[in-house]
Amino acid sequence: MNVYFLPNENIKNHQIYVLIDLLRATSSISALLHCGAEEIFVTDDINMAKELKNMGYLLAGERGAIKLEGFDFGNSPLEFLNNSDKIRKKSIVLTTSNGSKAMKKINELGDTIALSLLNFSSVVDFIIQRDFQNIGIVCSGTNGVVSLEDSYLAGLFVQRIMEKQTYHLNDGAKVSLNLTNSKRSLIMNSDHAKRLKNLGLKDDLEFCFNMDLFQVVPYSKQNSYTFKNLITI
Amino acid sequence: MNVYFLPNENIKNHQIYVLIDLLRATSSISALLHCGAEEIFVTDDINMAKELKNMGYLLAGERGAIKLEGFDFGNSPLEFLNNSDKIRKKSIVLTTSNGSKAMKKINELGDTIALSLLNFSSVVDFIIQRDFQNIGIVCSGTNGVVSLEDSYLAGLFVQRIMEKQTYHLNDGAKVSLNLTNSKRSLIMNSDHAKRLKNLGLKDDLEFCFNMDLFQVVPYSKQNSYTFKNLITI
Repeated sequence: MNVYFLPNENIKNHQIYVLIDLLRATSSISALLHCGAEEIFVTDDINMAKELKNMGYLLAGERGAIKLEGFDFGNSPLEFLNNSDKIRKKSIVLTTSNGSKAMKKINELGDTIALSLLNFSSVVDFIIQRDFQNIGIVCSGTNGVVSLEDSYLAGLFVQRIMEKQTYHLNDGAKVSLNLTNSKRSLIMNSDHAKRLKNLGLKDDLEFCFNMDLFQVVPYSKQNSYTFKNLITI
Repeated sequence: MNVYFLPNENIKNHQIYVLIDLLRATSSISALLHCGAEEIFVTDDINMAKELKNMGYLLAGERGAIKLEGFDFGNSPLEFLNNSDKIRKKSIVLTTSNGSKAMKKINELGDTIALSLLNFSSVVDFIIQRDFQNIGIVCSGTNGVVSLEDSYLAGLFVQRIMEKQTYHLNDGAKVSLNLTNSKRSLIMNSDHAKRLKNLGLKDDLEFCFNMDLFQVVPYSKQNSYTFKNLITI
Protein backbone atom coordinates (compact mmCIF):
# COMPACT_ATOMS: atom_id res chain seq x y z
CA MET A 1 0.00 0.00 0.00
CA ASN A 2 1.64 3.18 -1.23
CA VAL A 3 0.82 6.79 -0.37
CA TYR A 4 1.78 9.56 -2.80
CA PHE A 5 1.55 13.11 -1.48
CA LEU A 6 1.28 14.62 -4.93
CA PRO A 7 -0.05 13.33 -8.25
CA ASN A 8 3.25 14.16 -9.98
CA GLU A 9 5.19 11.65 -7.91
CA ASN A 10 6.54 8.62 -9.73
CA ILE A 11 3.39 6.55 -9.19
CA LYS A 12 3.66 2.78 -9.56
CA ASN A 13 1.09 0.34 -10.95
CA HIS A 14 -1.64 -0.49 -8.46
CA GLN A 15 -4.73 -2.63 -8.66
CA ILE A 16 -6.85 0.25 -7.37
CA TYR A 17 -6.26 3.96 -6.76
CA VAL A 18 -7.76 5.98 -3.93
CA LEU A 19 -7.92 9.68 -4.75
CA ILE A 20 -7.92 12.27 -1.94
CA ASP A 21 -8.77 15.95 -2.16
CA LEU A 22 -10.42 16.61 1.17
CA LEU A 23 -10.77 20.36 0.47
CA ARG A 24 -12.90 19.93 -1.46
CA ALA A 25 -13.19 17.82 -4.62
CA THR A 26 -13.54 14.34 -3.13
CA SER A 27 -15.81 15.70 -0.39
CA SER A 28 -17.94 17.28 -3.14
CA ILE A 29 -18.07 14.06 -5.17
CA SER A 30 -19.24 12.18 -2.06
CA ALA A 31 -21.90 14.82 -1.36
CA LEU A 32 -23.13 14.83 -4.96
CA LEU A 33 -23.54 11.05 -5.04
CA HIS A 34 -25.22 11.15 -1.63
CA CYS A 35 -27.70 13.64 -3.12
CA GLY A 36 -28.49 11.05 -5.77
CA ALA A 37 -26.50 12.38 -8.72
CA GLU A 38 -26.33 9.72 -11.43
CA GLU A 39 -22.67 10.33 -12.25
CA ILE A 40 -19.92 12.93 -11.80
CA PHE A 41 -17.66 13.61 -14.76
CA VAL A 42 -14.43 15.17 -13.51
CA THR A 43 -12.37 17.36 -15.83
CA ASP A 44 -9.74 20.06 -15.49
CA ASP A 45 -10.95 21.63 -18.76
CA ILE A 46 -13.47 24.43 -18.18
CA ASN A 47 -14.38 24.64 -21.88
CA MET A 48 -15.15 20.94 -22.02
CA ALA A 49 -17.35 21.38 -18.96
CA LYS A 50 -19.27 24.18 -20.67
CA GLU A 51 -19.81 22.06 -23.78
CA LEU A 52 -21.31 19.30 -21.67
CA LYS A 53 -23.93 21.77 -20.40
CA ASN A 54 -25.54 21.56 -23.84
CA MET A 55 -25.79 17.80 -23.38
CA GLY A 56 -27.82 18.22 -20.20
CA TYR A 57 -25.08 18.09 -17.60
CA LEU A 58 -25.18 20.44 -14.61
CA LEU A 59 -21.94 22.34 -14.06
CA ALA A 60 -20.10 22.50 -10.75
CA GLY A 61 -16.67 23.91 -10.10
CA GLU A 62 -14.23 26.55 -8.99
CA ARG A 63 -10.81 28.00 -9.59
CA GLY A 64 -8.91 29.32 -6.57
CA ALA A 65 -11.92 28.29 -4.43
CA ILE A 66 -14.19 30.75 -6.32
CA LYS A 67 -17.30 29.45 -8.14
CA LEU A 68 -16.95 29.68 -11.93
CA GLU A 69 -19.11 32.12 -13.87
CA GLY A 70 -22.11 30.58 -15.56
CA PHE A 71 -21.83 27.41 -13.48
CA ASP A 72 -24.81 25.93 -11.63
CA PHE A 73 -22.79 25.25 -8.48
CA GLY A 74 -19.40 25.88 -6.91
CA ASN A 75 -17.35 23.10 -5.33
CA SER A 76 -19.20 23.14 -2.02
CA PRO A 77 -20.57 20.00 -0.33
CA LEU A 78 -22.94 22.17 1.72
CA GLU A 79 -24.28 23.87 -1.40
CA PHE A 80 -24.92 20.47 -2.96
CA LEU A 81 -26.82 19.26 0.11
CA ASN A 82 -28.95 22.40 0.07
CA ASN A 83 -29.82 21.74 -3.57
CA SER A 84 -30.27 17.99 -3.53
CA ASP A 85 -33.64 18.22 -5.28
CA LYS A 86 -31.90 19.74 -8.33
CA ILE A 87 -29.10 17.16 -8.26
CA ARG A 88 -31.05 13.91 -7.91
CA LYS A 89 -30.75 11.68 -11.00
CA LYS A 90 -28.69 14.32 -12.81
CA SER A 91 -25.30 14.01 -14.49
CA ILE A 92 -22.83 16.55 -13.16
CA VAL A 93 -19.55 17.94 -14.47
CA LEU A 94 -17.08 18.90 -11.76
CA THR A 95 -13.99 20.97 -12.47
CA THR A 96 -11.74 22.14 -9.62
CA SER A 97 -8.27 23.62 -9.06
CA ASN A 98 -6.41 20.58 -7.75
CA GLY A 99 -8.59 17.48 -7.58
CA SER A 100 -9.55 17.42 -11.24
CA LYS A 101 -5.89 17.64 -12.36
CA ALA A 102 -5.05 14.78 -10.00
CA MET A 103 -8.03 12.78 -11.29
CA LYS A 104 -6.84 13.14 -14.88
CA LYS A 105 -3.48 11.65 -14.01
CA ILE A 106 -4.73 8.91 -11.70
CA ASN A 107 -7.71 7.65 -13.65
CA GLU A 108 -5.39 7.10 -16.63
CA LEU A 109 -3.44 4.69 -14.43
CA GLY A 110 -6.39 2.63 -13.25
CA ASP A 111 -9.79 2.35 -11.57
CA THR A 112 -10.18 5.08 -8.98
CA ILE A 113 -12.19 5.60 -5.80
CA ALA A 114 -12.79 9.07 -4.31
CA LEU A 115 -12.11 9.25 -0.58
CA SER A 116 -13.10 11.98 1.86
CA LEU A 117 -13.87 11.99 5.56
CA LEU A 118 -17.56 12.21 4.66
CA ASN A 119 -17.50 8.71 3.11
CA PHE A 120 -14.49 7.30 4.97
CA SER A 121 -15.87 4.03 6.38
CA SER A 122 -17.80 3.21 3.22
CA VAL A 123 -14.57 3.23 1.23
CA VAL A 124 -12.66 1.33 3.94
CA ASP A 125 -15.35 -1.39 4.01
CA PHE A 126 -15.37 -1.63 0.23
CA ILE A 127 -11.58 -1.96 0.00
CA ILE A 128 -11.49 -4.66 2.67
CA GLN A 129 -14.43 -6.55 1.19
CA ARG A 130 -12.87 -6.66 -2.29
CA ASP A 131 -9.52 -7.76 -0.85
CA PHE A 132 -7.39 -5.54 -3.11
CA GLN A 133 -3.78 -6.69 -2.98
CA ASN A 134 -2.13 -3.50 -4.11
CA ILE A 135 -3.50 -0.06 -3.31
CA GLY A 136 -2.20 3.34 -4.40
CA ILE A 137 -3.44 6.32 -2.38
CA VAL A 138 -2.89 9.63 -4.13
CA CYS A 139 -3.26 13.05 -2.51
CA SER A 140 -4.11 15.98 -4.76
CA GLY A 141 -2.13 18.55 -2.78
CA THR A 142 -2.73 22.27 -3.18
CA ASN A 143 -1.32 24.16 -6.14
CA GLY A 144 1.55 21.73 -6.53
CA VAL A 145 2.64 21.49 -2.91
CA VAL A 146 1.95 18.85 -0.27
CA SER A 147 -1.17 19.56 1.76
CA LEU A 148 -1.58 18.71 5.41
CA GLU A 149 -5.26 17.74 5.29
CA ASP A 150 -4.82 15.32 2.38
CA SER A 151 -1.77 13.71 3.98
CA TYR A 152 -3.68 13.37 7.26
CA LEU A 153 -6.64 11.65 5.58
CA ALA A 154 -4.22 9.31 3.77
CA GLY A 155 -2.73 8.38 7.15
CA LEU A 156 -6.14 7.71 8.71
CA PHE A 157 -7.00 5.48 5.78
CA VAL A 158 -3.75 3.50 5.94
CA GLN A 159 -4.16 3.09 9.70
CA ARG A 160 -7.73 1.80 9.42
CA ILE A 161 -6.95 -0.62 6.58
CA MET A 162 -3.92 -1.97 8.45
CA GLU A 163 -6.17 -2.87 11.38
CA LYS A 164 -7.80 -5.47 9.14
CA GLN A 165 -5.13 -6.47 6.63
CA THR A 166 -1.36 -6.26 6.43
CA TYR A 167 0.36 -4.53 3.54
CA HIS A 168 3.90 -3.50 2.80
CA LEU A 169 3.96 0.29 3.27
CA ASN A 170 6.06 2.66 1.17
CA ASP A 171 7.84 5.62 2.79
CA GLY A 172 4.93 7.92 1.96
CA ALA A 173 2.51 5.66 3.84
CA LYS A 174 4.82 5.67 6.87
CA VAL A 175 5.05 9.47 6.79
CA SER A 176 1.25 9.74 6.59
CA LEU A 177 0.79 7.38 9.56
CA ASN A 178 2.74 9.85 11.68
CA LEU A 179 -0.01 12.41 11.14
CA THR A 180 -2.88 10.37 12.52
CA ASN A 181 -2.33 11.49 16.10
CA SER A 182 -2.39 15.15 15.10
CA LYS A 183 -5.06 17.30 16.67
CA ARG A 184 -7.98 18.01 14.36
CA SER A 185 -7.48 21.72 15.08
CA LEU A 186 -3.97 21.58 13.58
CA ILE A 187 -5.25 19.91 10.41
CA MET A 188 -8.14 22.38 10.19
CA ASN A 189 -5.56 25.14 10.15
CA SER A 190 -3.72 23.92 7.05
CA ASP A 191 -2.68 26.39 4.36
CA HIS A 192 -5.67 25.52 2.18
CA ALA A 193 -8.05 25.60 5.15
CA LYS A 194 -6.83 29.09 6.07
CA ARG A 195 -7.45 30.19 2.50
CA LEU A 196 -11.02 28.88 2.61
CA LYS A 197 -11.62 30.67 5.93
CA ASN A 198 -10.31 33.92 4.44
CA LEU A 199 -12.80 33.52 1.59
CA GLY A 200 -15.68 33.15 4.04
CA LEU A 201 -16.01 29.41 3.50
CA LYS A 202 -15.57 28.32 7.12
CA ASP A 203 -18.87 26.39 7.21
CA ASP A 204 -17.91 24.42 4.14
CA LEU A 205 -14.47 23.72 5.56
CA GLU A 206 -15.85 22.44 8.84
CA PHE A 207 -18.45 20.36 7.05
CA CYS A 208 -15.71 18.47 5.17
CA PHE A 209 -14.34 17.27 8.52
CA ASN A 210 -17.51 15.34 9.40
CA MET A 211 -16.78 11.66 9.43
CA ASP A 212 -19.02 9.04 7.82
CA LEU A 213 -22.01 11.22 7.03
CA PHE A 214 -22.51 9.48 3.69
CA GLN A 215 -22.61 5.85 2.66
CA VAL A 216 -21.22 6.26 -0.83
CA VAL A 217 -18.37 4.65 -2.76
CA PRO A 218 -17.56 6.89 -5.74
CA TYR A 219 -15.96 4.57 -8.30
CA SER A 220 -14.52 5.48 -11.68
CA LYS A 221 -13.44 2.85 -14.22
CA GLN A 222 -10.00 3.55 -15.73
CA ASN A 223 -10.09 6.38 -18.30
CA SER A 224 -13.78 7.11 -17.76
CA TYR A 225 -13.19 10.12 -15.46
CA THR A 226 -16.71 9.48 -14.23
CA PHE A 227 -17.64 8.57 -10.68
CA LYS A 228 -20.72 6.49 -10.01
CA ASN A 229 -21.88 5.28 -6.63
CA LEU A 230 -21.28 1.58 -6.05
CA ILE A 231 -23.71 1.60 -3.13
CA THR A 232 -27.37 1.84 -4.06
CA ILE A 233 -28.94 4.41 -1.79
CA MET B 1 10.02 28.29 6.46
CA ASN B 2 8.77 25.85 3.86
CA VAL B 3 9.54 22.17 3.46
CA TYR B 4 9.17 20.51 0.06
CA PHE B 5 9.27 16.72 0.00
CA LEU B 6 10.26 16.57 -3.64
CA PRO B 7 12.16 18.95 -5.93
CA ASN B 8 9.29 18.92 -8.45
CA GLU B 9 6.89 20.58 -6.03
CA ASN B 10 5.82 24.11 -6.82
CA ILE B 11 8.72 25.73 -4.95
CA LYS B 12 8.38 29.37 -3.95
CA ASN B 13 11.09 32.05 -3.83
CA HIS B 14 13.25 31.80 -0.74
CA GLN B 15 16.25 33.73 0.48
CA ILE B 16 18.18 30.51 0.99
CA TYR B 17 17.61 26.87 0.07
CA VAL B 18 18.62 23.89 2.20
CA LEU B 19 19.07 20.73 0.13
CA ILE B 20 18.63 17.31 1.73
CA ASP B 21 19.63 13.93 0.34
CA LEU B 22 20.63 12.03 3.45
CA LEU B 23 21.25 8.77 1.51
CA ARG B 24 23.69 9.83 0.33
CA ALA B 25 24.51 12.93 -1.74
CA THR B 26 24.44 15.60 0.97
CA SER B 27 26.18 13.25 3.40
CA SER B 28 28.86 12.70 0.73
CA ILE B 29 29.26 16.45 0.10
CA SER B 30 29.75 17.01 3.84
CA ALA B 31 32.30 14.19 4.03
CA LEU B 32 34.20 15.46 0.97
CA LEU B 33 34.48 18.98 2.39
CA HIS B 34 35.47 17.57 5.78
CA CYS B 35 38.28 15.71 3.98
CA GLY B 36 39.49 19.06 2.68
CA ALA B 37 38.15 19.00 -0.87
CA GLU B 38 38.40 22.46 -2.42
CA GLU B 39 35.00 22.33 -4.09
CA ILE B 40 32.31 19.86 -5.16
CA PHE B 41 30.71 20.41 -8.55
CA VAL B 42 27.34 18.62 -8.61
CA THR B 43 25.85 17.51 -11.92
CA ASP B 44 23.31 14.97 -13.11
CA ASP B 45 25.20 14.66 -16.42
CA ILE B 46 27.65 11.75 -16.44
CA ASN B 47 29.27 12.89 -19.71
CA MET B 48 29.92 16.35 -18.31
CA ALA B 49 31.50 14.72 -15.27
CA LYS B 50 33.81 12.69 -17.49
CA GLU B 51 34.85 15.80 -19.44
CA LEU B 52 35.82 17.52 -16.21
CA LYS B 53 38.21 14.67 -15.46
CA ASN B 54 40.45 16.06 -18.21
CA MET B 55 40.49 19.37 -16.36
CA GLY B 56 41.88 17.75 -13.22
CA TYR B 57 38.68 16.99 -11.33
CA LEU B 58 38.31 13.72 -9.45
CA LEU B 59 35.10 11.87 -10.29
CA ALA B 60 32.65 10.57 -7.69
CA GLY B 61 29.21 9.16 -8.28
CA GLU B 62 26.69 6.39 -8.72
CA ARG B 63 23.49 5.36 -10.45
CA GLY B 64 21.12 3.10 -8.57
CA ALA B 65 23.61 3.17 -5.66
CA ILE B 66 26.28 1.47 -7.85
CA LYS B 67 29.63 3.24 -8.42
CA LEU B 68 30.04 4.44 -12.02
CA GLU B 69 32.62 2.82 -14.28
CA GLY B 70 35.85 4.76 -14.65
CA PHE B 71 35.05 6.95 -11.65
CA ASP B 72 37.55 7.53 -8.83
CA PHE B 73 34.94 7.09 -6.10
CA GLY B 74 31.33 6.05 -5.58
CA ASN B 75 28.92 8.12 -3.49
CA SER B 76 30.10 6.81 -0.16
CA PRO B 77 30.98 9.04 2.81
CA LEU B 78 32.99 6.19 4.33
CA GLU B 79 34.97 5.69 1.12
CA PHE B 80 35.78 9.42 1.08
CA LEU B 81 36.99 9.34 4.69
CA ASN B 82 39.21 6.35 3.90
CA ASN B 83 40.74 8.27 1.00
CA SER B 84 41.03 11.72 2.51
CA ASP B 85 44.70 12.01 1.47
CA LYS B 86 43.65 11.80 -2.19
CA ILE B 87 40.78 14.27 -1.73
CA ARG B 88 42.50 17.09 0.17
CA LYS B 89 42.72 20.31 -1.88
CA LYS B 90 41.14 18.59 -4.89
CA SER B 91 38.14 19.63 -6.96
CA ILE B 92 35.55 16.87 -7.16
CA VAL B 93 32.64 16.20 -9.50
CA LEU B 94 29.75 14.39 -7.86
CA THR B 95 26.92 12.85 -9.87
CA THR B 96 24.21 10.80 -8.15
CA SER B 97 20.76 9.33 -8.86
CA ASN B 98 18.58 11.75 -6.91
CA GLY B 99 20.57 14.50 -5.19
CA SER B 100 22.22 15.87 -8.32
CA LYS B 101 18.86 16.22 -10.12
CA ALA B 102 17.47 18.04 -7.09
CA MET B 103 20.56 20.27 -6.95
CA LYS B 104 20.11 21.30 -10.59
CA LYS B 105 16.58 22.49 -9.90
CA ILE B 106 17.26 24.14 -6.54
CA ASN B 107 20.51 25.91 -7.27
CA GLU B 108 18.79 27.60 -10.22
CA LEU B 109 16.36 29.11 -7.72
CA GLY B 110 18.96 30.49 -5.30
CA ASP B 111 21.96 30.00 -3.03
CA THR B 112 21.94 26.48 -1.60
CA ILE B 113 23.30 24.75 1.50
CA ALA B 114 23.74 20.97 1.69
CA LEU B 115 22.36 19.45 4.89
CA SER B 116 22.96 16.00 6.30
CA LEU B 117 22.99 14.59 9.81
CA LEU B 118 26.79 14.57 9.62
CA ASN B 119 26.89 18.39 9.48
CA PHE B 120 23.54 19.13 11.10
CA SER B 121 24.50 21.59 13.85
CA SER B 122 26.97 23.46 11.65
CA VAL B 123 24.18 24.29 9.22
CA VAL B 124 21.73 25.14 12.02
CA ASP B 125 24.26 27.53 13.61
CA PHE B 126 24.99 29.14 10.24
CA ILE B 127 21.30 29.69 9.42
CA ILE B 128 20.60 31.21 12.82
CA GLN B 129 23.70 33.41 12.74
CA ARG B 130 22.84 34.84 9.30
CA ASP B 131 19.24 35.45 10.38
CA PHE B 132 17.66 34.31 7.11
CA GLN B 133 14.05 35.46 6.94
CA ASN B 134 12.78 32.99 4.43
CA ILE B 135 14.10 29.44 4.17
CA GLY B 136 13.16 26.73 1.66
CA ILE B 137 14.09 23.17 2.64
CA VAL B 138 14.02 20.76 -0.27
CA CYS B 139 14.19 16.97 0.02
CA SER B 140 15.58 15.04 -2.94
CA GLY B 141 13.36 11.99 -2.46
CA THR B 142 14.16 8.67 -4.09
CA ASN B 143 13.41 8.04 -7.77
CA GLY B 144 10.58 10.55 -7.77
CA VAL B 145 8.82 9.49 -4.59
CA VAL B 146 8.88 10.94 -1.08
CA SER B 147 11.57 9.42 1.10
CA LEU B 148 11.23 8.86 4.81
CA GLU B 149 14.80 9.66 5.76
CA ASP B 150 14.86 12.99 3.93
CA SER B 151 11.49 14.02 5.38
CA TYR B 152 12.72 13.07 8.86
CA LEU B 153 15.87 15.16 8.53
CA ALA B 154 13.78 18.10 7.29
CA GLY B 155 11.63 17.78 10.42
CA LEU B 156 14.65 17.69 12.74
CA PHE B 157 15.96 20.82 11.06
CA VAL B 158 12.67 22.73 11.30
CA GLN B 159 12.35 21.71 14.95
CA ARG B 160 15.85 22.88 15.86
CA ILE B 161 15.54 26.19 14.02
CA MET B 162 12.17 26.88 15.65
CA GLU B 163 13.78 26.54 19.09
CA LYS B 164 15.69 29.73 18.29
CA GLN B 165 13.53 31.66 15.86
CA THR B 166 9.88 31.69 14.87
CA TYR B 167 8.81 31.21 11.27
CA HIS B 168 5.52 30.66 9.53
CA LEU B 169 5.51 26.98 8.56
CA ASN B 170 3.94 25.61 5.39
CA ASP B 171 2.00 22.34 5.44
CA GLY B 172 5.11 20.40 4.39
CA ALA B 173 7.02 21.72 7.40
CA LYS B 174 4.17 20.68 9.69
CA VAL B 175 4.11 17.19 8.19
CA SER B 176 7.88 16.88 8.64
CA LEU B 177 7.67 17.96 12.30
CA ASN B 178 5.43 14.96 12.96
CA LEU B 179 8.32 12.67 12.05
CA THR B 180 10.81 13.96 14.61
CA ASN B 181 9.64 11.60 17.35
CA SER B 182 10.02 8.57 15.10
CA LYS B 183 12.40 5.89 16.25
CA ARG B 184 15.72 5.98 14.45
CA SER B 185 15.23 2.27 13.65
CA LEU B 186 12.08 3.09 11.65
CA ILE B 187 13.90 5.76 9.63
CA MET B 188 16.86 3.44 9.08
CA ASN B 189 14.45 0.98 7.53
CA SER B 190 13.19 3.33 4.81
CA ASP B 191 12.77 2.06 1.25
CA HIS B 192 16.11 3.56 0.16
CA ALA B 193 17.86 2.30 3.30
CA LYS B 194 16.62 -1.23 2.61
CA ARG B 195 17.97 -0.99 -0.93
CA LEU B 196 21.39 0.06 0.35
CA LYS B 197 21.41 -2.82 2.83
CA ASN B 198 20.54 -5.26 0.05
CA LEU B 199 23.50 -3.93 -1.93
CA GLY B 200 25.84 -4.61 1.00
CA LEU B 201 26.13 -0.93 1.94
CA LYS B 202 24.97 -1.25 5.56
CA ASP B 203 28.10 0.39 6.98
CA ASP B 204 27.69 3.39 4.72
CA LEU B 205 24.00 3.64 5.60
CA GLU B 206 24.69 3.58 9.34
CA PHE B 207 27.50 6.08 8.98
CA CYS B 208 25.10 8.63 7.42
CA PHE B 209 23.07 8.57 10.65
CA ASN B 210 25.94 9.91 12.76
CA MET B 211 25.08 13.36 14.01
CA ASP B 212 27.48 16.30 13.93
CA LEU B 213 30.64 14.44 12.99
CA PHE B 214 31.73 17.27 10.70
CA GLN B 215 31.89 21.02 11.11
CA VAL B 216 31.22 21.98 7.51
CA VAL B 217 28.74 24.30 5.81
CA PRO B 218 28.59 23.33 2.12
CA TYR B 219 27.44 26.50 0.34
CA SER B 220 26.73 26.97 -3.36
CA LYS B 221 26.04 30.37 -4.91
CA GLN B 222 23.01 30.40 -7.20
CA ASN B 223 23.69 28.72 -10.57
CA SER B 224 27.23 27.70 -9.63
CA TYR B 225 26.30 24.07 -8.75
CA THR B 226 29.51 24.09 -6.72
CA PHE B 227 29.69 23.60 -2.99
CA LYS B 228 32.52 25.16 -1.02
CA ASN B 229 32.94 25.00 2.74
CA LEU B 230 32.12 28.26 4.52
CA ILE B 231 33.95 27.06 7.63
CA THR B 232 37.72 27.03 7.36
CA ILE B 233 38.97 23.74 8.74
